[in-house]
Amino acid sequence: MKIKSEWDIIAKIRDCVESKGAAKPKDLLMSIGDDCAVFRIGEGRFGLLSTDMFVENVHFRRDYSQPEDAGFKAMMANISDIAAMGGECRYALVSCGIPAGEDEEYVMRVYDGLTEAAKMAGVPIVGGDISRTGELVLSITVYGDAGPSGAILRSTAQAGNYIYCTGHIGSSQGGLEVFMQGSGEEKERWRSLVDRHTRPVARYDIAYDIKGQFRPTSMIDISDGLLSDLNHIAEESGKGYLLYGDRLPVSDDLRRYAAVKGSDPITYALKSGEEYELLFTSELFLSETVQMVINAIPVTLIGEVTDSGCRIEKNGKITDAGTAGYDHFREA
Amino acid sequence: MKIKSEWDIIAKIRDCVESKGAAKPKDLLMSIGDDCAVFRIGEGRFGLLSTDMFVENVHFRRDYSQPEDAGFKAMMANISDIAAMGGECRYALVSCGIPAGEDEEYVMRVYDGLTEAAKMAGVPIVGGDISRTGELVLSITVYGDAGPSGAILRSTAQAGNYIYCTGHIGSSQGGLEVFMQGSGEEKERWRSLVDRHTRPVARYDIAYDIKGQFRPTSMIDISDGLLSDLNHIAEESGKGYLLYGDRLPVSDDLRRYAAVKGSDPITYALKSGEEYELLFTSELFLSETVQMVINAIPVTLIGEVTDSGCRIEKNGKITDAGTAGYDHFREA
Repeated sequence: MKIKSEWDIIAKIRDCVESKGAAKPKDLLMSIGDDCAVFRIGEGRFGLLSTDMFVENVHFRRDYSQPEDAGFKAMMANISDIAAMGGECRYALVSCGIPAGEDEEYVMRVYDGLTEAAKMAGVPIVGGDISRTGELVLSITVYGDAGPSGAILRSTAQAGNYIYCTGHIGSSQGGLEVFMQGSGEEKERWRSLVDRHTRPVARYDIAYDIKGQFRPTSMIDISDGLLSDLNHIAEESGKGYLLYGDRLPVSDDLRRYAAVKGSDPITYALKSGEEYELLFTSELFLSETVQMVINAIPVTLIGEVTDSGCRIEKNGKITDAGTAGYDHFREA
Repeated sequence: MKIKSEWDIIAKIRDCVESKGAAKPKDLLMSIGDDCAVFRIGEGRFGLLSTDMFVENVHFRRDYSQPEDAGFKAMMANISDIAAMGGECRYALVSCGIPAGEDEEYVMRVYDGLTEAAKMAGVPIVGGDISRTGELVLSITVYGDAGPSGAILRSTAQAGNYIYCTGHIGSSQGGLEVFMQGSGEEKERWRSLVDRHTRPVARYDIAYDIKGQFRPTSMIDISDGLLSDLNHIAEESGKGYLLYGDRLPVSDDLRRYAAVKGSDPITYALKSGEEYELLFTSELFLSETVQMVINAIPVTLIGEVTDSGCRIEKNGKITDAGTAGYDHFREA
């Protein structure tokens, strides 16, 4: 039988691993189901592990992406998973599947991007493997740790908490549009959007301060899109939300770009994936007149956690929130 | 320019990562260049990380291998890397690239094998990722730890040390031959060899006792083949060796199989990869009349570390040792 969908096969794999696998040791606090696995490595110290696969023609295309950008983005996506738990990324491992007859320079440019992103976050690449494959495959694993306050899960949001996100969102989707459809002139004009899509930077440098200032009750990084990722928090926590659609932080460039295109910047903000901003919940309330800026990155209140229901308030009207993810296996 | 060879591209990648990457923190004791990366995680406690990629048509073939066996072997190879450092494997992560239109049952049978091997070694699978790829790709990462005596490296063999290996070697290569060329009747007759090839078991359960009894000065697992892996120890340690060719431990079945084929069982023992036996050096000397057996696994003295030169003694004659590895990128 063919695989039905990505979510279906993931559920079956998870069930196989949990029902037939080794018993969970007591030091293992979080297994499959969050951005990272979390386990105790000593008194008040926790190890974090996460892995992602990044594949040519699925996650990037050779004819569109510079190899440095593909490598950079793949590494940042992994570093972001550690930040999403409130941890510090320590080490990375990179395995690379390389097509037969591949150009050496192309591979080395991918590694230049991988290395650049890892260096930016202070993370040494300490191991890996290579093999021959049909297309370029990057498989990255990151190890990080979290201090005495532990890792911040997705599943622990409480009704009444406020929902925050870092930075600006939506630009990655805008940048992708310009990148795919835009003329050379447009790519120049909307460079900030394109850069955001090709070279996203994870919030590894402010995760620590966010923990200190907000004491988040749950956290995730925006990789699938704000709505999808907020739904992950809501589902795993057994809660709902009301999102303040009019308060979503979008960049001035995205606002201008949407105006030119006659579209709504909020639509981009809701669905844009690969943003690598942090999305978290907190008991702390910041009124509309108060702005928290950490290391030059704004943190914006964008909603509240409710008992149930996923809703968006926009122009004074409250509607049900739809979701839109991407499925590797569902056929069109 | 096309990639010259696997070793050439690995050397370039290593150079890129080390010259352009983040500075090595002082807690990082071993980076690329051994079976695992090794880093301090607390007073007298060390973390170990290793990753391997396992690809259809490179590491296994769908028309020969049962999917459970492919998964089992891929997981054991990774668990073996932790044993090779004298560590205990704690957690595994599995990413899987799945072809479009793949049969769900096939994928689940691969995971059955992965899970069975991991459970055998008491290792929970705590995370992973899936993506669409051209062929089936397994990328496994294992995390383990080592106690106060630390991890055992490849690079620390001393001249005058004795060389030991666990169990029997050569059977995996014999089993592969039977598997590829043998009739159904031959596969039945040489089942122990075939099983050894399709379902190798890593020495995770005796690594601890080997540390205690032998205090190894260096260690590696036999994944490329005895000669290749001994050369790794010799090269990384800046030493040579004299291998006692007549004393290599081969199983009775391999001896009988070689006799039927009119071949020399020692040739199998020297080159057979994917054995996952432990190969180590020690100051401890065991005379020919003394046999150490740990948890029913024999440990055999097979040579000595010398200042330089890689030589084999066989039938009283000493010759230079050749090497034979497998290269994913070198063209025939």
